[in-house]
Amino acid sequence: MDGWKKRLAWLRVLPEPVPADRDTPLKTAEFEKELFFGGRKETVRLLKDDALGEGYEILPTDLGYDVRGGETGVLYGVYALIRALTAASALPRGVRKPYYDLRMLDSWDNMDGTVERGYAGRSIWFEGNAFAYDPARIRQLGRMLGSVGINALCLNNVNVHQPAQRLLEDLLPKVREFAALLRPFGVRIMLSVDFSQPMQHGLDTADPLDERVQGWWRETAKRVWEAIPDLAGFLVKADSEHRPGPNTYGRTHAEGANMLARAIAPYGGKLVWRAFVYNCMQDWRDTKTDRPRAAYDLYMPLDGQFDGNVILQIKHGPYDFQIREPLSPLLLGMKKTSLALELQLAQEYPGQQIDLYAMPPMWREILDEMGKEKVRAVAAVSNLGRDDCWTGHPFAALNLFSYGLFSWDPDSEAEETVRQWVRMTYALEKGQEDTLTEWLLRSRSIYEKYAASLGLCWMITPNSHYGPNPYGYEFQAWGTYIRADRNAVGIDRTEKGTGYVSQYPEKLREMYARPETCPDGLKLFFHRLPYDYRMRDGRTLIQRLYDDHFEGAEEARAMAEALKTLELPEADKREMLERMDKQLLNAREWRDVVNTFFHRFSGAEDEQGRKIYD
Amino acid sequence: MDGWKKRLAWLRVLPEPVPADRDTPLKTAEFEKELFFGGRKETVRLLKDDALGEGYEILPTDLGYDVRGGETGVLYGVYALIRALTAASALPRGVRKPYYDLRMLDSWDNMDGTVERGYAGRSIWFEGNAFAYDPARIRQLGRMLGSVGINALCLNNVNVHQPAQRLLEDLLPKVREFAALLRPFGVRIMLSVDFSQPMQHGLDTADPLDERVQGWWRETAKRVWEAIPDLAGFLVKADSEHRPGPNTYGRTHAEGANMLARAIAPYGGKLVWRAFVYNCMQDWRDTKTDRPRAAYDLYMPLDGQFDGNVILQIKHGPYDFQIREPLSPLLLGMKKTSLALELQLAQEYPGQQIDLYAMPPMWREILDEMGKEKVRAVAAVSNLGRDDCWTGHPFAALNLFSYGLFSWDPDSEAEETVRQWVRMTYALEKGQEDTLTEWLLRSRSIYEKYAASLGLCWMITPNSHYGPNPYGYEFQAWGTYIRADRNAVGIDRTEKGTGYVSQYPEKLREMYARPETCPDGLKLFFHRLPYDYRMRDGRTLIQRLYDDHFEGAEEARAMAEALKTLELPEADKREMLERMDKQLLNAREWRDVVNTFFHRFSGAEDEQGRKIYD
Repeated sequence: MDGWKKRLAWLRVLPEPVPADRDTPLKTAEFEKELFFGGRKETVRLLKDDALGEGYEILPTDLGYDVRGGETGVLYGVYALIRALTAASALPRGVRKPYYDLRMLDSWDNMDGTVERGYAGRSIWFEGNAFAYDPARIRQLGRMLGSVGINALCLNNVNVHQPAQRLLEDLLPKVREFAALLRPFGVRIMLSVDFSQPMQHGLDTADPLDERVQGWWRETAKRVWEAIPDLAGFLVKADSEHRPGPNTYGRTHAEGANMLARAIAPYGGKLVWRAFVYNCMQDWRDTKTDRPRAAYDLYMPLDGQFDGNVILQIKHGPYDFQIREPLSPLLLGMKKTSLALELQLAQEYPGQQIDLYAMPPMWREILDEMGKEKVRAVAAVSNLGRDDCWTGHPFAALNLFSYGLFSWDPDSEAEETVRQWVRMTYALEKGQEDTLTEWLLRSRSIYEKYAASLGLCWMITPNSHYGPNPYGYEFQAWGTYIRADRNAVGIDRTEKGTGYVSQYPEKLREMYARPETCPDGLKLFFHRLPYDYRMRDGRTLIQRLYDDHFEGAEEARAMAEALKTLELPEADKREMLERMDKQLLNAREWRDVVNTFFHRFSGAEDEQGRKIYD
Repeated sequence: MDGWKKRLAWLRVLPEPVPADRDTPLKTAEFEKELFFGGRKETVRLLKDDALGEGYEILPTDLGYDVRGGETGVLYGVYALIRALTAASALPRGVRKPYYDLRMLDSWDNMDGTVERGYAGRSIWFEGNAFAYDPARIRQLGRMLGSVGINALCLNNVNVHQPAQRLLEDLLPKVREFAALLRPFGVRIMLSVDFSQPMQHGLDTADPLDERVQGWWRETAKRVWEAIPDLAGFLVKADSEHRPGPNTYGRTHAEGANMLARAIAPYGGKLVWRAFVYNCMQDWRDTKTDRPRAAYDLYMPLDGQFDGNVILQIKHGPYDFQIREPLSPLLLGMKKTSLALELQLAQEYPGQQIDLYAMPPMWREILDEMGKEKVRAVAAVSNLGRDDCWTGHPFAALNLFSYGLFSWDPDSEAEETVRQWVRMTYALEKGQEDTLTEWLLRSRSIYEKYAASLGLCWMITPNSHYGPNPYGYEFQAWGTYIRADRNAVGIDRTEKGTGYVSQYPEKLREMYARPETCPDGLKLFFHRLPYDYRMRDGRTLIQRLYDDHFEGAEEARAMAEALKTLELPEADKREMLERMDKQLLNAREWRDVVNTFFHRFSGAEDEQGRKIYD
């Protein structure tokens, strides 16, 4: 029941912050605490300075350290200090402030206790259509989130299933209680809301321009913020995958979002509106409609029409958290709208927290591509659940940890965050620490080789999204095609094809538009190429596909061998080994299924004569 | 709630049998009733003659008819008389007896109210893990079954999910009540049992050779038959698709079945043991293991080892109710075992009671292939549910009706049973009656053309089993492959391939073994053939595939046009039209997806230049 108490992820070496369990906000202007690091005592003085807000500054003193910061800033400062001293990293210098104002964790928890695309057990706080949790565990959750600077938690699934609407209604006192548990850790609550909810209260419409609808939401917002004055905001998935939205009433998404935004503006609430909108009833025969185009086509014309407290939340790629996608052009295109970058810690496509898949290297790429102009908020779909170890695979905690660090500082280096997590979580001798760090850093590129080589996405088992099925989605309505035939594979997204590439700024557009300059990892995302296309290194496309799949599976095997040598706590080791066996089976399946699939189409033999099944 | 009362399927013109609702068995030796047929009064005299058992004889008299028969035989005789007079068919002559002793309807109803592979709504008698039904509806069900001679109903899913085990325990009195409702109609109850059930009662094994296990089943049988002395028997799915069974304990299926059979033998119970056992964790790389071989390989060596009250229930084909399969060789091979033929009325693969698919022509083929030597029992998976019209598509009732008639007389003609159902169900003028009869008779061959041409099965959407997905199952563990590549398609099941064909008696074996003599409909079931293989009529294989798919979809369209003209009761017409629209979309999808799939592999163009999408 409470095995989680022994499974603290990186909190293993994180002493409790101050005061004690920090059940109440830090009221004292000054507080002193002794912390121990490897037997060495440090006296840490906390100096409250409201002007710093979430920021902090750490200053060495004769006895230890002074941490100066605002109400939450002090907390972040202490955690940063602990991380630095525990992981022997450099101390943060000068005043540090988070880059993203809103650093969200989006839970897709349903009130029946299931978690949509959850791979770490059932919901930590919902069960049987009610709140059901151990308050100690929620405080621990707060500590986990606060320790890496995450400042908002969306409680419920963006697909708002009954009775989650009641969170705004009779369950509001329960939300209030829950929020109080997380508040001491700087974590504010958000709620996913159902755009059509007024219609469950006697209205015959949810039209955002209808005054009664506006009134209903104003009343609701008033009631909600009275109960939870620091609620961070509402999250909305509208007109997406059969969810209701403003399009039903012939209204734009700006009209829909602004209506809600105005209802919550008096309370400082943010209206986070997901841009994950596309035609999910596409006809595969239609080669003009192109799902990756959808968000840009819909939202770019609305740039400038959104109210100031609307944040448009955009998935990092134009599809849906595939292993390799180009950056969503919408993140580069919209200049007059507040944006949030959406990531997914839940490993929906890359191995479902059975397989190892460390995300920091991917985020480094995404953040480099995105630059730092406009985006000032970030969200990630949670990978947490009721499992003792919180994240299914014990190493999957790395992704939550690193997400927090990247959300504070998007210039973070992948290797540094990975190594910090390793040091915080396990007491490994240097060689083993290097081994674990190395393979974590490589795990994504290994996965990519056997599951998404050259940017071919969606070769995954429909619905479950675990394991290969290259043609499983090929004739379905989701707009996720690879269009392999006996001669070629991929979709032409240049001007001659679907034109998707034209959504990018000139420099990227030109790079992506020509197969010669398009990065290998996105070659088949942007282009339809024959199997005998010559890659820059002289290999044919089909040979490269074969090579990647053989190499990826082989590297997974080498990774398993290396990780087996680690001296880990028993439960972590057992779970890691069990899952690694499954990953190896999965990697072999990816290798053989995809190679056979393309061998059957192309008829090309592997130049190295490796086994490809008929 | 009770819309079903107005939706009587073929019972529309079936007067109540005698006495009245026949709530009690027919006790009187003689009974007289007046029945009306098209305004003409007939006096029917029932003469009870126990020696006839289920048999009956109809004799014209001056005032009407005498029906002589045993307790249930009289009932069947009256229904036969009513059918003959209503449908203007020939009167049955001489003493008629059912060919199959046990004529079962297997319901796959779960106690939570769901129906596995059910397409007509939720369970009629289970809901919320309890019995929940309208007794009037169960009596009506009894009347439906009795009117076509079905004499056993298995209440619960062969996959026995908790708490269905309780049907043998504390819920036994409820089963008894339910059985009493059906008894007057000659319908006896059966129960699906869980082979591992003793382990839920303190035993550490379900080993059939363990005396405690045997004792537990003896006690259970005693209790069950004391409650329901005419219970027809137990149905068992063991060692199949992850169900428990004797293999767990290193015992044969004969040992497993006999143990149960001996427990129930004192009460005259039948132990119906399903032969649907195969490796459902197959590796697609393995081209030697061949699922269609499985049942024969397992059971033939056991022929002669089963007790006399064991019935081995064998699906008509070696796979799983595909649209076109050869007859299971086990039905031809086992000579010393009592066998039951298993059919499926539920349209799991052919359109799920959305699409039109009349089965009598298929049954005619199956029964002709099977001959009449050994098989003396027949079972069909039910197509019934809580829908007002009982069967999803109102025309799907035909399959239940005809199944009953075939189970009495396996020499029945498809056209005659279809026409009889049409006449019993609708009052159509002759031209419309002919139209409906014609298209019902053609519906299966139309479906076959676009969904299973040349015996290619399993090109269906995994799990849901509705709509095309030619490669959806290709790399999965179920043993259901088509192995299409750029040159050829199909599986070689001759001696040079998996050897499956050797399971057939010589004459069939020789016919199937050579592509030239193998029937077109099974060509790709038994053979792997190149796309340019020449069919007997000179067409290439690929052209035949294209032609079938174009023709099938076109014929579906013609069928829809013709059926739209029918003058049917309003609800039936509305439902038929709604479903026909869906079928047309589905047919188009089948046509285009399968044609595109093979076009992408083969590169062959359609000789007639019809549209095949890229």
